[in-house]
Amino acid sequence: VLIKNPHLDSMEEDILYHLDLGTRTHNLPAMFGDIKFVCVGGSPNRMKAFAQFMHKELGLEGSGEDVADICAGTDRYAMYRTGPVLSISHGMGIPSISIMLHELIKLLHHAKCRDVTIIRIGTSGGLGIKAGSVVITDTAVDASFQPRFEQVVLGDVVVRSTDLDRELAEELLACSKEVPDFPTLIGHTMCTYDFYEGQGRLDGALCSFSSEKKLEYLKRAHKAGVRNIEMESTAFAAMCRLCGLRAAVVCVALLDRLEGDQIRAPREVLREYQQRPQRLIAAFIRRRLARC
Amino acid sequence: VLIKNPHLDSMEEDILYHLDLGTRTHNLPAMFGDIKFVCVGGSPNRMKAFAQFMHKELGLEGSGEDVADICAGTDRYAMYRTGPVLSISHGMGIPSISIMLHELIKLLHHAKCRDVTIIRIGTSGGLGIKAGSVVITDTAVDASFQPRFEQVVLGDVVVRSTDLDRELAEELLACSKEVPDFPTLIGHTMCTYDFYEGQGRLDGALCSFSSEKKLEYLKRAHKAGVRNIEMESTAFAAMCRLCGLRAAVVCVALLDRLEGDQIRAPREVLREYQQRPQRLIAAFIRRRLARC
Repeated sequence: VLIKNPHLDSMEEDILYHLDLGTRTHNLPAMFGDIKFVCVGGSPNRMKAFAQFMHKELGLEGSGEDVADICAGTDRYAMYRTGPVLSISHGMGIPSISIMLHELIKLLHHAKCRDVTIIRIGTSGGLGIKAGSVVITDTAVDASFQPRFEQVVLGDVVVRSTDLDRELAEELLACSKEVPDFPTLIGHTMCTYDFYEGQGRLDGALCSFSSEKKLEYLKRAHKAGVRNIEMESTAFAAMCRLCGLRAAVVCVALLDRLEGDQIRAPREVLREYQQRPQRLIAAFIRRRLARC
Repeated sequence: VLIKNPHLDSMEEDILYHLDLGTRTHNLPAMFGDIKFVCVGGSPNRMKAFAQFMHKELGLEGSGEDVADICAGTDRYAMYRTGPVLSISHGMGIPSISIMLHELIKLLHHAKCRDVTIIRIGTSGGLGIKAGSVVITDTAVDASFQPRFEQVVLGDVVVRSTDLDRELAEELLACSKEVPDFPTLIGHTMCTYDFYEGQGRLDGALCSFSSEKKLEYLKRAHKAGVRNIEMESTAFAAMCRLCGLRAAVVCVALLDRLEGDQIRAPREVLREYQQRPQRLIAAFIRRRLARC
């Protein structure tokens, strides 16, 4: 893990405020030094369910039901570990995932972790694909379909690349053959700052465009290779890349945005959809661990 | 509450997905029609504590300890009501608060609420003010100190005003005389998309600037009238203004950013700081209700 910050080594103590962890209060190498996989996702409940699921999948002792929240002292994020797998929530949107990633990457650095693979498992709106399909992102693009992330630094805009690890994406696609009961594909993922106007929804509190303009925009996105839309992938790809983490984004589509805006599927159907990326990642981690 | 969306009236049902509420599944006018004050803040635990505090302040029956989360079916946001006061969490950053506001504003519209005042009570980094000071925002500005919010709509940037209600800010300042044990002031609030590089912190996973450049930026912000920095105010001000909600932002400063980056105060001190905006808003609501 590469920390690109010359100031960090001169700090006597590093408080990871939003994780409620710190270099003086916690023995980070002992707690996290052997972590090899980090899985992140928006919802704290979902990331807890993933930790419990991984516990079973890895055949660890006990039921895993009582897995403890490592960040219990704060409600900003939730964090669980099962074996070499860390599961963390990041909330919704770029600013929220970016705070978590800064502190997570420093945590991995302080803990002297090596060869870490990080995967975002999330939900998204599909574009021209069936609800329930799982998209492995090859490139994260912005609302203009460009593979870039604009970060404001001291008031100035810095443009960063959003390339993800191609080999990892191909490896994940290969793993998807082991979980054949849902479609998995590779495509571009569009990342927006807003769920309603920013993604061309007609059902927000504000909407100034027509149904035709909306469809024209979404079809342009589809033509540019976008297969799903979410709200974190460009920042995630840019930060992981700069810090030397092999990263992937795997999201299930809860609906096809060419067919509507509202998420209407029953809760049980949505719950099963949300398990799909988790099952794919579990297959991937088991395969990786078997290879070691 | 003004909904600026001609499509909404033609919808048979409106599912407020991230709040786990809907027009068919819930009687929104019965549940929320008499709401007059909406208080929003980042942390779900803090917004629950505020609801419990308001329960006592309003002299309502029972202990208020068992106040129920109205959005219990989802972990995206938490929502509580006590008398005419709704308390909702919004997570961290503009995208997260914007999803909540779209659905909250539609909720107030569907519930036929009238004369609603909405206040964000949050935490922030201070600029040239003592830790623990409470800042009432007169104008929310972006990272270039401009009073504007840039919203991407179908890939194009739309610029929106971030003016807040001046009278409401003055009324809140007058109320602060009733809670005299901490300093309260009116000033500009800078809103950023990032907590580390975006706010000039030297302690993130990435940092490419010197301590001198950081201080130069923060001093320029101070000279432009900025007294605190947070991550939601411009979007909050812009959306509430467009939808006809009288809005205010009241945040406590957890530290003075001219003196450091890390939040080092003990948990108990931070907890007391976070109660300060709550106490000010309780005084304001009690005063308003007494006047009716």
